[in-house]
Amino acid sequence: MPTDAMSADEFRRYGKQLIDWIADYWQGLEDVTIQPDIEPGEIRAMLPAAAPEAPEPFDAVIADLDAVVARGLVHWQSPHWFAYFPANASFPAILAELVSAGLGQQGMLWSTSPVTTEIESHVLDWLVDLLGLPAHWKTTGPGGGVIQMSASDASHIALVVARHRAAAGNARPHDMVAYTSSQAHSSIEKGARVAGYGHIRPINVDAQFGMLPDALAAAIDGDLSAGLTPAFVGSTIGTTGTTAIDPIRAIGEVAQSNGLWHHVDAAFAGTAMLCDEFRHHQDGLELVDSYNFNPHKWMLTNFDCSVLYVADRRPLIEVLEILPPYLKNRASQVADVIDYRDWHIPLGRRFRALKLWWVLRTYGASGLRALIREHVRLARWLDRQLMDDDRFEVVAPTPFSLVSFRHVSGDSTTQSLASEINREGPAYVTASSIDGMHFIRVSIGQTNTREAHVQRLWQTLDRLAPPV
Amino acid sequence: MPTDAMSADEFRRYGKQLIDWIADYWQGLEDVTIQPDIEPGEIRAMLPAAAPEAPEPFDAVIADLDAVVARGLVHWQSPHWFAYFPANASFPAILAELVSAGLGQQGMLWSTSPVTTEIESHVLDWLVDLLGLPAHWKTTGPGGGVIQMSASDASHIALVVARHRAAAGNARPHDMVAYTSSQAHSSIEKGARVAGYGHIRPINVDAQFGMLPDALAAAIDGDLSAGLTPAFVGSTIGTTGTTAIDPIRAIGEVAQSNGLWHHVDAAFAGTAMLCDEFRHHQDGLELVDSYNFNPHKWMLTNFDCSVLYVADRRPLIEVLEILPPYLKNRASQVADVIDYRDWHIPLGRRFRALKLWWVLRTYGASGLRALIREHVRLARWLDRQLMDDDRFEVVAPTPFSLVSFRHVSGDSTTQSLASEINREGPAYVTASSIDGMHFIRVSIGQTNTREAHVQRLWQTLDRLAPPV
Repeated sequence: MPTDAMSADEFRRYGKQLIDWIADYWQGLEDVTIQPDIEPGEIRAMLPAAAPEAPEPFDAVIADLDAVVARGLVHWQSPHWFAYFPANASFPAILAELVSAGLGQQGMLWSTSPVTTEIESHVLDWLVDLLGLPAHWKTTGPGGGVIQMSASDASHIALVVARHRAAAGNARPHDMVAYTSSQAHSSIEKGARVAGYGHIRPINVDAQFGMLPDALAAAIDGDLSAGLTPAFVGSTIGTTGTTAIDPIRAIGEVAQSNGLWHHVDAAFAGTAMLCDEFRHHQDGLELVDSYNFNPHKWMLTNFDCSVLYVADRRPLIEVLEILPPYLKNRASQVADVIDYRDWHIPLGRRFRALKLWWVLRTYGASGLRALIREHVRLARWLDRQLMDDDRFEVVAPTPFSLVSFRHVSGDSTTQSLASEINREGPAYVTASSIDGMHFIRVSIGQTNTREAHVQRLWQTLDRLAPPV
Repeated sequence: MPTDAMSADEFRRYGKQLIDWIADYWQGLEDVTIQPDIEPGEIRAMLPAAAPEAPEPFDAVIADLDAVVARGLVHWQSPHWFAYFPANASFPAILAELVSAGLGQQGMLWSTSPVTTEIESHVLDWLVDLLGLPAHWKTTGPGGGVIQMSASDASHIALVVARHRAAAGNARPHDMVAYTSSQAHSSIEKGARVAGYGHIRPINVDAQFGMLPDALAAAIDGDLSAGLTPAFVGSTIGTTGTTAIDPIRAIGEVAQSNGLWHHVDAAFAGTAMLCDEFRHHQDGLELVDSYNFNPHKWMLTNFDCSVLYVADRRPLIEVLEILPPYLKNRASQVADVIDYRDWHIPLGRRFRALKLWWVLRTYGASGLRALIREHVRLARWLDRQLMDDDRFEVVAPTPFSLVSFRHVSGDSTTQSLASEINREGPAYVTASSIDGMHFIRVSIGQTNTREAHVQRLWQTLDRLAPPV
């Protein structure tokens, strides 16, 4: 007869201890060095070669949080985090993740967890209004939103649906072409490869790194002449390199006149659309077939929580629906319910909408807007300091909260500067490049990043940057 | 200036309150009715039409756990859960999910969270030994394991890699054939459709619902004669319908002699291989290219945690690797590290290995084995009661802990019986069918299911089943 490894009383005791451990961790984040000083294999070398045969006391398990886990952490939640994009989190979201795990729901069908399905649909409908997205994207209309694991999943699914639609016209995947700007996220290229597209066409960008619609139209014409089938175009609001913005309306018009599926990746910048003043950047969304943004980047909702919207849910479901006997149930057959299993590749799904619901309620729309505006204000302030200093040049506009700049002395000085900042800490930035030109990305978006952190980063930059 | 929606002190207080709420929830699970009495739309009707503009007090958010969330839960964690397969969880796993959310790691690369990567590799290597899998599947050898979201993702990825390999021989996806038994999980067919296979060939099964290798070989021959390209075969250890077992070695030999990628789906039954006495069912795994099992089904590790092993990681990475400038880093370029981003579609990934590590340590291998053996013993006990009663017939063997049976009076009596059991509660079973024959699935595997629960189910069956 098996025995409980942990009783409910022990769960209460250890759970509370771990709540305090997490609070302590967050309260100590101001002072940590973000990147650990560790070599590959060091963590594994601290672990036994085989799993334990007998149960270990939970105190020993918890002790290894400090002895082992802490040694190999990268502190993504530090307010000095300026690297990549943020993967921010917040206390309400962490607690929702706890409750979601505690409830152990599996929401593959409406009937296997009505609350998982309905709160997801409802909260994603809320966000359509909050972000100024087209109203027909709501689940109460022809479209709908669904939480995926990541933007890569969302773009892959869009590519598959686009391929399916083009195949209905008798085209073969190896003759199909997917277009995206040369600045698009690598997940578009990866998704197209996974989905079996024969051709992936990078489209040139303008001086501000936005896709050139004329170049797209010309590429489509060329491919049509060559007997290929243009099937998909992915545009971006806020590229990963520099948060460049593709002209959605112009690309949408080209896509529509050529019958392409048009997917928009707004993984990071989508959250900014909580604020009216950024919405001109998404002008033209009513021409779009699918759209993605990641609350797990800038909306305080811990990974994973990536939202895919479709303007029309039917082609999505047509590709992804399968109904074996053990999954038949009355609600799916007779009522008009959403079975989210048919909206993505995984069958099982956990209650991820809970954390998004809790974040929206705990911060309120006004609280989220205040945070976004503060981050953008700080980015523009940093942008201004850099512009006013002749050692630096800003290499791309700062429409949101990513600042892209370099040292005017060139690539090696710029790379060294990034390394020195990261070595000194506590700030952590990303060294990147476009077409061989090296630059530094400062991405402002961690939950607790405020003026003092950005000012300190500027002081460090000012001190470390050599004169011209 | 944005204000904190929740201070660290509030997080401590509310977190502890929620730990207690979850403990109370689990302690009340003995007595709940698993399926809620709810109609589509009821949850949404309880929610405001728009997101709140101002922050709400967190007490109000928590209050809605009882007022709203509880209304629409399906109690997957009840010990009376006998439906589908379990999606079991445990206290150590729930606490690990909490800590994982609290740490907010993003492990796309080794360098973005060394601990996320190394604990995952290490624990999945442990499991190779614990489950008696081929030693070369370890990350320390040519293969390796990676956590995916679900078995559907794992089989889809395997199908994509198989397609890629076949394409290297100049075949086109629409000429490629994927084979699997008529009893395989729907995710194989769905994955093949998503991956763009032109043909999905269901292979006949024997009287015990295991795939017929001769039928597979004949189908391959037929397709070769027709000019098609056999590319993939998916076999199953423990089908979803009846936990039938395909002959892995025989299928592996057919696959190998025809150059097919051979993927094994052991989503549920894989956990049983902790115990020696079940391992003859996986004889032949050394011939296999990829393999999946779900700790989130029967290994006490809450969703999502689905493990994909590959015998050789190179073809997997070749298809899925992409290296844009902002993701270049020293460790990936010079050292031999695993960047798990290149092992699946998503880019971001959370620290899911933590919960698997904690479960293995807290239960120990011996504790997990004891639980598996108890569940199998109870299933065989129920199987025996049904066999000894002339009202019932068992429709498939019970190699693990799923019992498949029907009322001898036929389909409608069987269906009514399932409905009555579920209506009466607290037990919850699945009504299913194979080739039009209806039967009842009793799947034993929830963390807290013990003898008393299965006995009670049998008493209910005995009482509700009409005489012949």
